[in-house]
Order: sequence, then C-alpha cells, then structure tokens
Amino acid sequence: MIMTKRDLLLAAAAGLVAGGAGSIAAHGAGNTSEPKPYHDRMETPAHWHGSEKIAMVVYPGFTALDLVGPQYCFGSMMGAEVKLVAKTREPVRADTGLVFVPDQTFDECSADLDILFVPGGLAGTLKAMTDDATLAFFKDRGGRAKWVTSVCTGSLVLGAAGLLKGYKATSHWVARENLRGFGAEPVDERYVIDRNRVTGAGVTAGMDFGLALVAKLRGDDYAQAVQLLAEYDPKPPFSAGSPKTAPPVVRDMLLEMFKPFQADVQRIAESAAKRL
Amino acid sequence: MIMTKRDLLLAAAAGLVAGGAGSIAAHGAGNTSEPKPYHDRMETPAHWHGSEKIAMVVYPGFTALDLVGPQYCFGSMMGAEVKLVAKTREPVRADTGLVFVPDQTFDECSADLDILFVPGGLAGTLKAMTDDATLAFFKDRGGRAKWVTSVCTGSLVLGAAGLLKGYKATSHWVARENLRGFGAEPVDERYVIDRNRVTGAGVTAGMDFGLALVAKLRGDDYAQAVQLLAEYDPKPPFSAGSPKTAPPVVRDMLLEMFKPFQADVQRIAESAAKRL
Repeated sequence: MIMTKRDLLLAAAAGLVAGGAGSIAAHGAGNTSEPKPYHDRMETPAHWHGSEKIAMVVYPGFTALDLVGPQYCFGSMMGAEVKLVAKTREPVRADTGLVFVPDQTFDECSADLDILFVPGGLAGTLKAMTDDATLAFFKDRGGRAKWVTSVCTGSLVLGAAGLLKGYKATSHWVARENLRGFGAEPVDERYVIDRNRVTGAGVTAGMDFGLALVAKLRGDDYAQAVQLLAEYDPKPPFSAGSPKTAPPVVRDMLLEMFKPFQADVQRIAESAAKRL
Repeated sequence: MIMTKRDLLLAAAAGLVAGGAGSIAAHGAGNTSEPKPYHDRMETPAHWHGSEKIAMVVYPGFTALDLVGPQYCFGSMMGAEVKLVAKTREPVRADTGLVFVPDQTFDECSADLDILFVPGGLAGTLKAMTDDATLAFFKDRGGRAKWVTSVCTGSLVLGAAGLLKGYKATSHWVARENLRGFGAEPVDERYVIDRNRVTGAGVTAGMDFGLALVAKLRGDDYAQAVQLLAEYDPKPPFSAGSPKTAPPVVRDMLLEMFKPFQADVQRIAESAAKRL
C-alpha cells in the first residue's frame, strides 16, 4: 500500500513538473518514463483519488498571494482540474504588478464546480464587487458549487453576490466587520467553514485555508504530504502578523490607511442590501 | 512623525492599488486624490525610503509560490522597482499551471541590481541549471548585485552559476544536502544570510525570507507593517511542515519521490565542478 501511495505521489510530482495538475497525473503516470497501469489506482484508498473541477477567479488588482497559496494546494491534488478564470482572456495585472494569463473566461468555465474560489485585493476588489458580469457569474456558479470559497477580502465579493447571507465567515482583519453589511456573521479565525462556505483571513491565511480544504477533499494524510512538500513550517521573523500582536503604532497606521476602503465597502453593502 | 509614516503607508497602498510598487508610491502620492508634496519625504526616517532595483527571475516550471511570497514583500516596499525577468518575453508556465507574463528579458534587465532573486522548482529548475544563457545572466548580475537571493531549490540555480561557493546556504529540505555539490555549506534554517547571499528553505519559507530582507532594507518597523498587511500569523492545520515533525510515512514517501531529482542535481553538480 505504501508503494501504491508512493506511485500516486510520483504521479502528482509528474503533474507538477509537466505544468498542470490533472494532465499526466490524471492518467496515473509517474515521474519515471514508464507510465503506471491505470488499474493501480484501484488499489489505493478512494479518498486519494479525485477529479475535482476548481475555478479560481481573478480580476484586475487582485492580490496574487491570496490566490497562489491555495493554488499550490489545489494544484497538488492529483486529477483535479484547476483553472484560472476571468471576465476575458486578457492578461490580468495583480496589485503588486504580477501579470497572469487566465485559462478560461466566465462563459468557458464549467457550469458545475467542486470549488469556486475568489482572492481579495483593495481597489480592484471594490470594482469586482460592483461589476454586473462578475456578480452574475458568482451567483450562478456559487449557487451550485460544492464549495464556495475565498481568501482575504475575496469574501466581500462572495458577500456582494449574496452568497454569505446567514453564514459565518472571515476576511482580512481590516475588512472582517464589513461582512455584516452582507448579512454574514464575522468570525475571528484563520479560516471559517460553515456548511459549504470556506473563507480565509488575510493574504497568507490562504495556505492554512488551502490545506484545510485539501484535507476535506482528499484526507488528512494527503494534506500533510502537501504541507511537507511546501515545507510549511512557518517561522516569521517578527510577531506582527495579527492586530493583537503587532506593535500598536503599526496596527494604528494600517487601520488609518484602510478607513477609506472600509467606508467604500460599507457603501457598496448598503446599496447591495436593497437588491439582495 | 506618525502622520508622515502614515502618509508613506498610504502611498504604499496607492502603489499596490495602482498595480505596481514604485509607480505612484515613488512620487509620494497617497491613496486620496491629493498628491503629497515631494518634500514630505525629507521629514521621514531615511530607512523608510528606497529605490531598489529588484529582478525576480522566472523560467518554465518554476514554483509560483516560491516567488509570490517574496514578491508580495518586495512589492510593498515603496519606491522599489520589482521586475519579473525571463529569457524571453513569452509567457512562462509555472509548475502548478499558472501562467505569468514577464516584464523584461535578461538583456533588458538592469545591469546593477539591489536584489537578484530566483525561485525553485523541479524539472524546470534542472533545465535552468544547465541553460547557458541563464547561467551567464546569473554570473553577470549575481557578481554585482547587492543581494543575491533564492527560495527553495532556487539556491541550486545560484549554486550552478558558481554564486554559493564558500557560502552558507539553504534550500528545500529534500535538496539541501545537494548544495555541497556546488561548494556551499548547507544550513538547516528557515532562511540563511551569509554576507550578501540570502537563501530561503522550501516554498513557503519565501514569506519569512521576504520579511527578513525587507527588514534589512527598510528596517524592522517597515517589515512589521508588511507582516500585518499580509496577516502573516500562520496557523497550519497540521504540524507536517518539516521532515522532523511530519508523520514518518509521509516523509518517507516524499523522500522516495525525490530520489531521482536528487540524483539529477548531483550529476549536474559533478559536471559543474569541472568548470566552476
């Protein structure tokens, strides 16, 4: 059995190396030149297999790191089809300047998803929250997806699409209380799972969020293998990662800096409340 | 003074929102519509200012998360010019399938860099380690850059270019011992700073690495603000992130899976030893 698990991980590695989870991996090939016989997969635990359809939505100004932590986790799930989805096929510039090429447009995205995911951002997120095509896409796919998920202020997009009404959820610490405006109950946790809604806290929470979802979909042992592959044994050089532990002067600076953002979100929430 | 620091952070936020550190931020504008007078910057501590030239090199099959953690940190440094550099301007596919558009080719990259950075990967990294144009670029820019840096198996690329000979360094845990082949002394730390060489451990170590470098360049208070902005207060759902803490069965699977990679690196190191 260990040997068979190893073969599966080899397949996963081959999928990673070949540039796209689900391509080689889905056919059970290892990272040797010998393809593994397909029936090998029958000998492994059912929870190690999968063919999830995962859509990760991007929009101009999204925060790349919100997306790339979870994408690492999802992309390590053998057989999963992980697509970067955007309004158009045009390259999308993230908030720190990285430019990504989407795989699919909203129209091209699978109708029935296992995971619908959205990252956060600042000005770009405010735009996404008020863009009709974006909201229509989230309402449609989010209404049917097995898991409806976000990291950071991505939960505000879910909220604006009416997908968090009556759910517990989280967001980046500066925006968490804003969730009330969309009928959600804010929770101060690294990630929050309420029925099929899974929301992560700010930016780097995407890694904790991603591993938790992998564990839900593929089991704890699989998630632990992904964690070790990512060498996710964090040792931040400072303990300023939470408003509870950061030096008050640093926290107050950021709070001041985000006041206009919080006000904008509140305004969008009030407008949304009329139509939700 | 706090007010002035806040203005600077506002400028940083504007830089993020506008999609690229160094654009608006370099001119001292806040995220209000009012541009800040340039002379304001004179009133703030010298270490809060900067105009670093940072080149982050990508190649087909690199691990996106190795890059995006540090890029978040560097991209939050006001005034810094952070460029994604590749052999050509063609979009580059990372190992989990994400596609990035480079900003510059090797030829277009600044001759004198403050930070030269390279992420890791698996098969793609082996190719980069044996590609003449890539090695020539690293030898040239790495010979003059103020900081020569990597995350994960990116240190093997630095090693192959002869940039780690006689230096302490680290890498992804499965490849760390391979560094000896390039004349480096492997160190089991989250990140290792030896003179101007800064190397991070596997994948997610990029966040710890990135904050440590921001602290070197802009001071501890700046790095703490970036940490709080990233809500980097990690809470992994398992404690499997290090070979010391992962379940032995998971660790042994990955070790087995990476043996062919380790052997390939060893072969490249032996070949490189003749010319370094």
